[in-house]
Amino acid sequence: MRYAFAKRVRHLQSSAVRDILKVVGKGNVISFAGGMPDDELFPLDGVREAFENTFATGKKPLQYIETEGYLPLREVLVERMGRKGITNYDASEILLTTGSQQAIDLFSRVMFNKGDIILTENPTYLAALQVFESYEANIIPVDSDEDGMLADDLERKIKKYKPKCIYVVPTFSNPAGKVWSMERRRHLIQLAHKYHVMIFEDDPYGDIQFNMEETYTPIAALDDGTHVLYTSTFSKTVVPALRTGWIAGPHQIIRIMSQAKQANDLHSNSLSQQALYHMCQDFDLDGHIEKLRTVYQSRMEIMLEELEKADLPGLSYVVPKGGMFFWIQLDERIDTSELLNVAVKKGVAFVPGAPFYVGKDVQKNALRLNFTHATPEKLRKGMGLLTSVIKEHYLEV
Amino acid sequence: MRYAFAKRVRHLQSSAVRDILKVVGKGNVISFAGGMPDDELFPLDGVREAFENTFATGKKPLQYIETEGYLPLREVLVERMGRKGITNYDASEILLTTGSQQAIDLFSRVMFNKGDIILTENPTYLAALQVFESYEANIIPVDSDEDGMLADDLERKIKKYKPKCIYVVPTFSNPAGKVWSMERRRHLIQLAHKYHVMIFEDDPYGDIQFNMEETYTPIAALDDGTHVLYTSTFSKTVVPALRTGWIAGPHQIIRIMSQAKQANDLHSNSLSQQALYHMCQDFDLDGHIEKLRTVYQSRMEIMLEELEKADLPGLSYVVPKGGMFFWIQLDERIDTSELLNVAVKKGVAFVPGAPFYVGKDVQKNALRLNFTHATPEKLRKGMGLLTSVIKEHYLEV
Repeated sequence: MRYAFAKRVRHLQSSAVRDILKVVGKGNVISFAGGMPDDELFPLDGVREAFENTFATGKKPLQYIETEGYLPLREVLVERMGRKGITNYDASEILLTTGSQQAIDLFSRVMFNKGDIILTENPTYLAALQVFESYEANIIPVDSDEDGMLADDLERKIKKYKPKCIYVVPTFSNPAGKVWSMERRRHLIQLAHKYHVMIFEDDPYGDIQFNMEETYTPIAALDDGTHVLYTSTFSKTVVPALRTGWIAGPHQIIRIMSQAKQANDLHSNSLSQQALYHMCQDFDLDGHIEKLRTVYQSRMEIMLEELEKADLPGLSYVVPKGGMFFWIQLDERIDTSELLNVAVKKGVAFVPGAPFYVGKDVQKNALRLNFTHATPEKLRKGMGLLTSVIKEHYLEV
Repeated sequence: MRYAFAKRVRHLQSSAVRDILKVVGKGNVISFAGGMPDDELFPLDGVREAFENTFATGKKPLQYIETEGYLPLREVLVERMGRKGITNYDASEILLTTGSQQAIDLFSRVMFNKGDIILTENPTYLAALQVFESYEANIIPVDSDEDGMLADDLERKIKKYKPKCIYVVPTFSNPAGKVWSMERRRHLIQLAHKYHVMIFEDDPYGDIQFNMEETYTPIAALDDGTHVLYTSTFSKTVVPALRTGWIAGPHQIIRIMSQAKQANDLHSNSLSQQALYHMCQDFDLDGHIEKLRTVYQSRMEIMLEELEKADLPGLSYVVPKGGMFFWIQLDERIDTSELLNVAVKKGVAFVPGAPFYVGKDVQKNALRLNFTHATPEKLRKGMGLLTSVIKEHYLEV
């Protein structure tokens, strides 16, 4: 039988990240591809104890709950966001989701008609681009530098395109690994208020900060609770398998997103939400995050050392101040999508730059390297493999 | 700020089930409303042990997995569906979802353009109607009797409307609690092949069967693997909080649904999938389901006894052969939506019939009663309250 799919299916395709996760699953390849934390750093005992504490309260945690998610966990999140200066939202203005991916999807579902405009950085998170495209939104990239979107181009494009939303990953962005300056953050929120545009602030990596003497105020903390949706997740700081993220925002938007979520999946896994609540209460989550920062910073430094040692002509990059990624540009003649095939055969994987770009202005010589998943030994070995593959490739072009 | 939502938001609204779950959450009301299993019957020790067995395997179960879900659980489901005669699908043709609700949503997402036609029973599962409406599909009800959709009306409407899909809950339907006859099942699959229409078979309740001497073959077992999507869930047989359902179907459709799921939430809670795998291996799930059947049948019989005892004029119903619901009609002058307000004040809740209907042909005198959530004592007390509320209401109309 020939199946007739919906038109929106055209915009769905298996992502590079997904295909590469499959390669990685098969074993011998050292992967700098996915945005994965290191299994070895997972707080297994803490997670186990949190589940045990949940089971100890009886059978009620196993029943259906309300779509918005387990209320005590939402209350904990009010307090934890408050420490970052985000004080506009109470527990009723938080929706627990299946990872922050679902927050991006539900927001898009309630917000975008076909042809609605969304402004993004370029490059930006590829799975967000996939979602926006699946709702047939029109994505317009804004010119950026190391400090964030360029003020002039941003205002010009807001005026020209009248976007419904501006999607940003301002703190340790994916893939570029950069941090927006305070000035650019303030400017963005001013423009959002001036022109009545929503900001969607995606902050999965904010806690993985290396230099704790610097402060990167979330954009949601600069708002008055009317123009910003803020999403984050426990996937990077606790474990991914619990698939627990959240989104906070204006009451009216969160309420409609809850209705969309009810149609989508009724509610997310509530046993995990209850275990995460116990973890926030009984486990030293902040101490654990501190440990992750230290270990991941040291791994970033190993990768940096290997990059410096490799002495690749035409190489450029910004040293990440946090998060999980190095974003590097090679000599302009190198197409990293072609390079990936060779690299995987030699035993090392990464994500080529192209899928992170909107439109035609693609840097084919860029690639994203994750430094959190591999052990120091594998980091050195993998970087050795990668730099030798690049050097061989240089001779050919 | 005035927020501009997508047009599809018009079709989203808080459902009666959801509003009533909120009432129930507040305590003193005896609820026959939601499709909830009884907390007291949850296999807490089995669940706890399954998680413990998962944690005992180390840290890997806490990492990201592929979108389709934990492969060994999908392999167990191949075997379990095989016992029901569903043998067309291998593990690659199964997608693990966040409850079967997400399976309905993802299917609709990849299948329906605005205005596409879907045929349903009338009344039918209200949260499926909500999903179809949110994708702006056009829902056409087919006339039914106790044995399923009427053959003539079904064929006439297939020819007239050229539907993309026929949505059915053939075994212990929600809300009507009925079982399709074998003849009607065969007829449905014949028509699907003749006219090239997909069948979406929603089977959350199939395991809650009272008379094990009867056989209710799933429609998917009558197909050759080309025309049926089959969805079910662990929410009714194990526990709802794990939010684990699945969908099996033709490879091409499952593959595209996986891509939609990747955009929607990357993957469902994989720790729970692994615990459910251990439960299927180490816990006597079939013995547990046998126990649920016995207890739930005895509760259905208590409700039946109370209904008979009440001697309500104009009352009609079909005795359920399984599942979780009694579907009853009162005297035609009674509007059960109005009755609900009075009933809740007196301490008992149910779902009025109206939201389960498509179009204007609504039986306002119908209501759905769940018999699985309340204890026998509460069942008797709640039925006493309800029948006295109905009798008082009769005097007024």
